[in-house]
Amino acid sequence: MKTISGGVTAPKGFRAAAVHAGVKSQDPAHLDLALILSDVPCAAAGVYTRNRVKAAPVYVTRTHLADGTARGVIVNSGNANACAPNSHEHAEAMCTAAARALGLETEDFAVASTGVIGQELNIACIEAAVPALVSALAATEEASDAAARAILTTDTHKKERAIEFTVDGVVCRMGTIAKGSGMIHPNMGTTLSFLTTDCAISAQLLQKALSDVIRVTMNRVSIDGDTSTNDTCLLLANGQAGNAEITAPGEAYDAFHAALLELLMWQARQIAGDGEGATRLVTAHVTGARSEEAAETLAKAIIHSSLVKAAMFGADANWGRVICAMGYAKAPFFPEYVDIAFSSAAGSIEVCRQERGLPFDEELAKQILTQEEVVIEVDVHDGASEATAWGCDLSYDYVKINGDYRT
Amino acid sequence: MKTISGGVTAPKGFRAAAVHAGVKSQDPAHLDLALILSDVPCAAAGVYTRNRVKAAPVYVTRTHLADGTARGVIVNSGNANACAPNSHEHAEAMCTAAARALGLETEDFAVASTGVIGQELNIACIEAAVPALVSALAATEEASDAAARAILTTDTHKKERAIEFTVDGVVCRMGTIAKGSGMIHPNMGTTLSFLTTDCAISAQLLQKALSDVIRVTMNRVSIDGDTSTNDTCLLLANGQAGNAEITAPGEAYDAFHAALLELLMWQARQIAGDGEGATRLVTAHVTGARSEEAAETLAKAIIHSSLVKAAMFGADANWGRVICAMGYAKAPFFPEYVDIAFSSAAGSIEVCRQERGLPFDEELAKQILTQEEVVIEVDVHDGASEATAWGCDLSYDYVKINGDYRT
Repeated sequence: MKTISGGVTAPKGFRAAAVHAGVKSQDPAHLDLALILSDVPCAAAGVYTRNRVKAAPVYVTRTHLADGTARGVIVNSGNANACAPNSHEHAEAMCTAAARALGLETEDFAVASTGVIGQELNIACIEAAVPALVSALAATEEASDAAARAILTTDTHKKERAIEFTVDGVVCRMGTIAKGSGMIHPNMGTTLSFLTTDCAISAQLLQKALSDVIRVTMNRVSIDGDTSTNDTCLLLANGQAGNAEITAPGEAYDAFHAALLELLMWQARQIAGDGEGATRLVTAHVTGARSEEAAETLAKAIIHSSLVKAAMFGADANWGRVICAMGYAKAPFFPEYVDIAFSSAAGSIEVCRQERGLPFDEELAKQILTQEEVVIEVDVHDGASEATAWGCDLSYDYVKINGDYRT
Repeated sequence: MKTISGGVTAPKGFRAAAVHAGVKSQDPAHLDLALILSDVPCAAAGVYTRNRVKAAPVYVTRTHLADGTARGVIVNSGNANACAPNSHEHAEAMCTAAARALGLETEDFAVASTGVIGQELNIACIEAAVPALVSALAATEEASDAAARAILTTDTHKKERAIEFTVDGVVCRMGTIAKGSGMIHPNMGTTLSFLTTDCAISAQLLQKALSDVIRVTMNRVSIDGDTSTNDTCLLLANGQAGNAEITAPGEAYDAFHAALLELLMWQARQIAGDGEGATRLVTAHVTGARSEEAAETLAKAIIHSSLVKAAMFGADANWGRVICAMGYAKAPFFPEYVDIAFSSAAGSIEVCRQERGLPFDEELAKQILTQEEVVIEVDVHDGASEATAWGCDLSYDYVKINGDYRT
């Protein structure tokens, strides 16, 4: 596997574009409408929010992708089109606008939105912008880059990457653009992720691969897989690489799965590290658990704890908060067996053995905890399972960003 | 019921005291060791943390109170005596020191600690301070006040109150001192609460009353009843008021229950409003739920949401975050029936009806949300049950306080 340029347009037969429609900002430099299109029909897979309150675009996309195929996806930022008047009609209208301009069907398109909840979407400005959006479609790095920027909200940088991998000796490509949760708790922020690939794979296996990989990547960014009203991850496979279609498990499927894991693992870390106000990526790695579920629950509890997050912001080796967070997680473990260490590029330091504090070098601890990426290593000595979860620290800027987001 | 002076010494036959032992701070003005003593044996009830990781004082207190009786409680701040070397021995030693100085038994005492986790308690300084602590015991407002201050950590003000109530025509008194969670999420902070009463009531009914009332008061401050390693609420009843002992449900029990509810409801609001860095008390009131459990789960999810908390700090009427938090709570409701309003001393404003945003006066909303106490009113139109939960906003100061608490 190697990283290549081109983002979502790196796979053969995909084009992308973005324009300023004026959904929220009137600044013409602010891109807020993006389109990804395949030249031919794609196998399509999606994973959506599990929130009981779902935004209209989620319902519409699920319906349009029910047959396992799609041609593209249209996305706006600035308004979540959730809990808002006429939200369902507006989500459909976005697909229809793209379809008309391209001579395709409404059902050929997925749709996603991100931004403020509860305000009616300005559909007129989107419909007016679609012709320019379609005209801008291009299979270039610039086009993917524009789309990657258009879907952002409070993210500090775009998330875009493409890789090359081999299936049955045939070179395939996979690309992604994503917007961060933008939130410390993705269960409340919106995560959007769009992947393209030219690998030929059946819709059924595409969905299986996506669901499996999401479980150990995006669903382990902060807490328990709970998600916002709008969370959407879509994967479009147009088969243009020329490999024999993957229709059953085996080596070819494994190669595809590995490529998807690579991209979504990268993306999970990108999104966690770019949480609102984050100054560092915090990873919890729990080993020695009696089941993967137990390890995952403990790792997520650590990452989700506001007190752990605040301690990480302050580079404070306050491991008591780590074990405390584990204690109120609903997972089995024996506190008296727990070992805890902090590690980073600056080294590693054990701070707790068998539930008891160890004397440690505070200076070294500070050096370790002030790195851009810090790992909280927990061994519960209760079995052979492990799990990793990703989060970030809790900073003043989180409060600043979220104290007045709507206005 | 009327409020009276005297705190935990307001009930007949109770004395209190506090001194500086030097557990953490060397400043002699910093009180960190408190004692509450009854002149005669008390019926004793306790409610403790449900965290899997429990501090030694919790284990020791549960054992000492297993027979339903106690004479007093000794408490230190500055060190949680949790996950620390010799913690069990030190917790016992605190009881023994008090017992020796008073000619009583170690088992006559409950013990509680609050402060940093994982560092060995300086038991020598506590033992050295006990004689002065015992000498200072007094049934005065000043003594209760000193004890109330000695148990605080990051609280900004003491929590102390006493009330008078009537049982079978006999005037009884009940007093409390408490320390806030001090935390935005009490599931990770430590809440300590000590109540005294001169009402005569059996240990069994005392425990029943305490457990019942805690459920709808302290366990509804922020999230789901999860608690720190040290949370403890103790209620001592010494029967000195002279009423006929309450041994069965009925009017007398109801009067006692009402008094306890009054004090613990007050305390829940005090603790929520004094969360670390809090600028206002935020109450979630969910009505129309199909069960009390559903209402409680939804109310707690709202109060626990970092995004709702940050919006409250910014006085931003961002109701989308309210319904989003409800959506990922594990409770049944239909989003399309949900109405949401914000209210406070400055008025009330409906912002969402049937899952759809209403136009509202942003100026009025700002006035309502900048009050010291804000209520988020949610009607889910799905039944007749309701619940209230209390929390606070999320401010810069929370991050500041918790970014470097340990050092």
